[in-house]
Amino acid sequence: MPKERETARIEAFSDGVFAIAMTLLVIDIKVPGHELVAANGLARSLVALWPSYLAYLTSFVTILVIWVHHHLIFTLVRRIDQPFLYWNGLLLLFVAFVPFPTALLAQFLLHPEAKVVAHLYTGTFLAISLAFDGLWRHALIRLLPKNATIAKNEEAAQITKQYRYGPPLYFVVFGVSFVSEAWSVALCLLLALFFALQGWPVRR
Amino acid sequence: MPKERETARIEAFSDGVFAIAMTLLVIDIKVPGHELVAANGLARSLVALWPSYLAYLTSFVTILVIWVHHHLIFTLVRRIDQPFLYWNGLLLLFVAFVPFPTALLAQFLLHPEAKVVAHLYTGTFLAISLAFDGLWRHALIRLLPKNATIAKNEEAAQITKQYRYGPPLYFVVFGVSFVSEAWSVALCLLLALFFALQGWPVRR
Amino acid sequence: MPKERETARIEAFSDGVFAIAMTLLVIDIKVPGHELVAANGLARSLVALWPSYLAYLTSFVTILVIWVHHHLIFTLVRRIDQPFLYWNGLLLLFVAFVPFPTALLAQFLLHPEAKVVAHLYTGTFLAISLAFDGLWRHALIRLLPKNATIAKNEEAAQITKQYRYGPPLYFVVFGVSFVSEAWSVALCLLLALFFALQGWPVRR
Amino acid sequence: MPKERETARIEAFSDGVFAIAMTLLVIDIKVPGHELVAANGLARSLVALWPSYLAYLTSFVTILVIWVHHHLIFTLVRRIDQPFLYWNGLLLLFVAFVPFPTALLAQFLLHPEAKVVAHLYTGTFLAISLAFDGLWRHALIRLLPKNATIAKNEEAAQITKQYRYGPPLYFVVFGVSFVSEAWSVALCLLLALFFALQGWPVRR
Repeated sequence: MPKERETARIEAFSDGVFAIAMTLLVIDIKVPGHELVAANGLARSLVALWPSYLAYLTSFVTILVIWVHHHLIFTLVRRIDQPFLYWNGLLLLFVAFVPFPTALLAQFLLHPEAKVVAHLYTGTFLAISLAFDGLWRHALIRLLPKNATIAKNEEAAQITKQYRYGPPLYFVVFGVSFVSEAWSVALCLLLALFFALQGWPVRR
Repeated sequence: MPKERETARIEAFSDGVFAIAMTLLVIDIKVPGHELVAANGLARSLVALWPSYLAYLTSFVTILVIWVHHHLIFTLVRRIDQPFLYWNGLLLLFVAFVPFPTALLAQFLLHPEAKVVAHLYTGTFLAISLAFDGLWRHALIRLLPKNATIAKNEEAAQITKQYRYGPPLYFVVFGVSFVSEAWSVALCLLLALFFALQGWPVRR
Repeated sequence: MPKERETARIEAFSDGVFAIAMTLLVIDIKVPGHELVAANGLARSLVALWPSYLAYLTSFVTILVIWVHHHLIFTLVRRIDQPFLYWNGLLLLFVAFVPFPTALLAQFLLHPEAKVVAHLYTGTFLAISLAFDGLWRHALIRLLPKNATIAKNEEAAQITKQYRYGPPLYFVVFGVSFVSEAWSVALCLLLALFFALQGWPVRR
Repeated sequence: MPKERETARIEAFSDGVFAIAMTLLVIDIKVPGHELVAANGLARSLVALWPSYLAYLTSFVTILVIWVHHHLIFTLVRRIDQPFLYWNGLLLLFVAFVPFPTALLAQFLLHPEAKVVAHLYTGTFLAISLAFDGLWRHALIRLLPKNATIAKNEEAAQITKQYRYGPPLYFVVFGVSFVSEAWSVALCLLLALFFALQGWPVRR
């Protein structure tokens, strides 16, 4: 029973970090200054913020999908140990960092050196996918109950199959950021949607 | 029992986003600069911030009312599925966006092009009402227990009746923003109060 | 049992707003600009921020004490109704507003017109104490269980006795802000400490 | 049973403050201005932000480790009293303050007067370690169940042994900040990693 409470608290704490990181993203959409609006008009100034909207959408959806999968893992894991706590901490370190590359993307997507920003943006998501992979592998080997039902085991196998693609796919996206910043960001959004729609093992 | 836990976690996560979005609104009330205060005096500079106070009040009350109704839905829904999770995510995407149009309103309510801002502000609330409608419809069709008590079913019917008015009313307010930015914002505040006072089906 | 869950969720949501409002206060302590530091040195620039530290301390302690008392009320209240939800919402509206007058105080405590800021600062706490009073009165009349134990009833009576002093005391502090901004802020801090140490009815 | 609920709520509230303080740290990594980027290029401007990344990493890991240990204490404490609530409040006051010295460090690590900033940064962590020590001592003397199992008592003794080193070590780091700002910050990061890896008494 104390074990149960431990899982609950680590979930609540992680949810706090996920929710705050997602909600802080909106701060990076900067209200246009009065001089800019005087020069270009308000409507055009707001349209010119489209890289900010795109960055908000992409980062929000990505963190949301990570949260959903984080949530899935915790429906299987019933106890925690210290390495799990620190894998989770590493994941949160990268998730809480997301608002910074998002703000950079919003400011510099149309800049000649935008590729640098795209490296940092896609690199952050690559780091998240690696930390997530580490978290899941550790849970799988050490923390899943030995006497799990067949249904639970199948679910775990299914999750393993799905998550296998995370790091290599984000590695490809990171590589694409060396070719085209626009494509790498578009792929980030597509990947988030892909993982969102990829299915919910519990129900199958 | 795992199902119960799932509902609890999605509620806690959503509450986090609601609470943060509401509390971040205060950041958009900008402390007046020292030059402005030197020119106009502190008292007058603070009075001149009234669009910020109005925007804070309207957005805070609106998100609070959405939270109350979100809460009502979760007293009926006992299990979740993947589409529900993503309807909820869409709702949170729009709710977490609210601080941006609120900041715009605070800055540009008295600007000649204020109608543009009013479109975005009322449009965000229209989007929220549509996402909310989708969430409730999905819950109603797929997630309410088949063997619900008559009391529960009546409650659900009452909620459906109430929520029916949400999207059309916000569509009207969005339309009004093309005629008068002042009226459209006033209507947003009135609508929030109307939905607040409209009754609490559980108690009837 | 669903009633129990309702209380839990409103507590969690309120806690979110309290925690965020308290943690956002630190944003109002502005890092001194590089020009200012070049002119005055870093050490002196940091010492000159003392109004910011004082404002942070006073607002943090006040919100913490409100949270502790909010918490006490919820150990007695077992069910909620719609007016309770909106009294609570009003309380949160004022609590979430606190970072703004705190930022003003940090910026303008030494300004010739600082009294204006002190009115707003103490006025916000007066508004909080009134909303808190309304919340407790409503709970007392409508929501406390009729069949409460004698211990619970005594506790409720004790809370009533304590809270009786809240609004009049904050009204006095608001009045003092017309005489001296420094004294009114000092009294806010003293009041928070007074309510903190005033005792914890549950233990007596 | 109400006692159990009290612990739960104070945990949830504290978790909120921890999670928000950690996530707010990212706001202190400032997106470089367009003029700076025009002068130095984007890549070099981002590399020049390394003090911000270091400050983010050090503060994030430190707060995470404090959270883990806070969590450990609450697996032993089953009831709370008023002094415990205020020791916890003092701890949160310092934890919520961390983003300010972190922002200072990010801005002024390479400034000639950086030692001043290092005093404030390491001093904040010293204050946290003292508040934590007070919290644990109070819990140990007053709140641990008298009829605890031998396992629980051993765990408590082990925690006491570990925490004994906290304040003296942070006092040393504070002293080092008078000699070298770079070493004092590096030691903060090392100390956080040391406390992270130092073991998890429950499992031993």
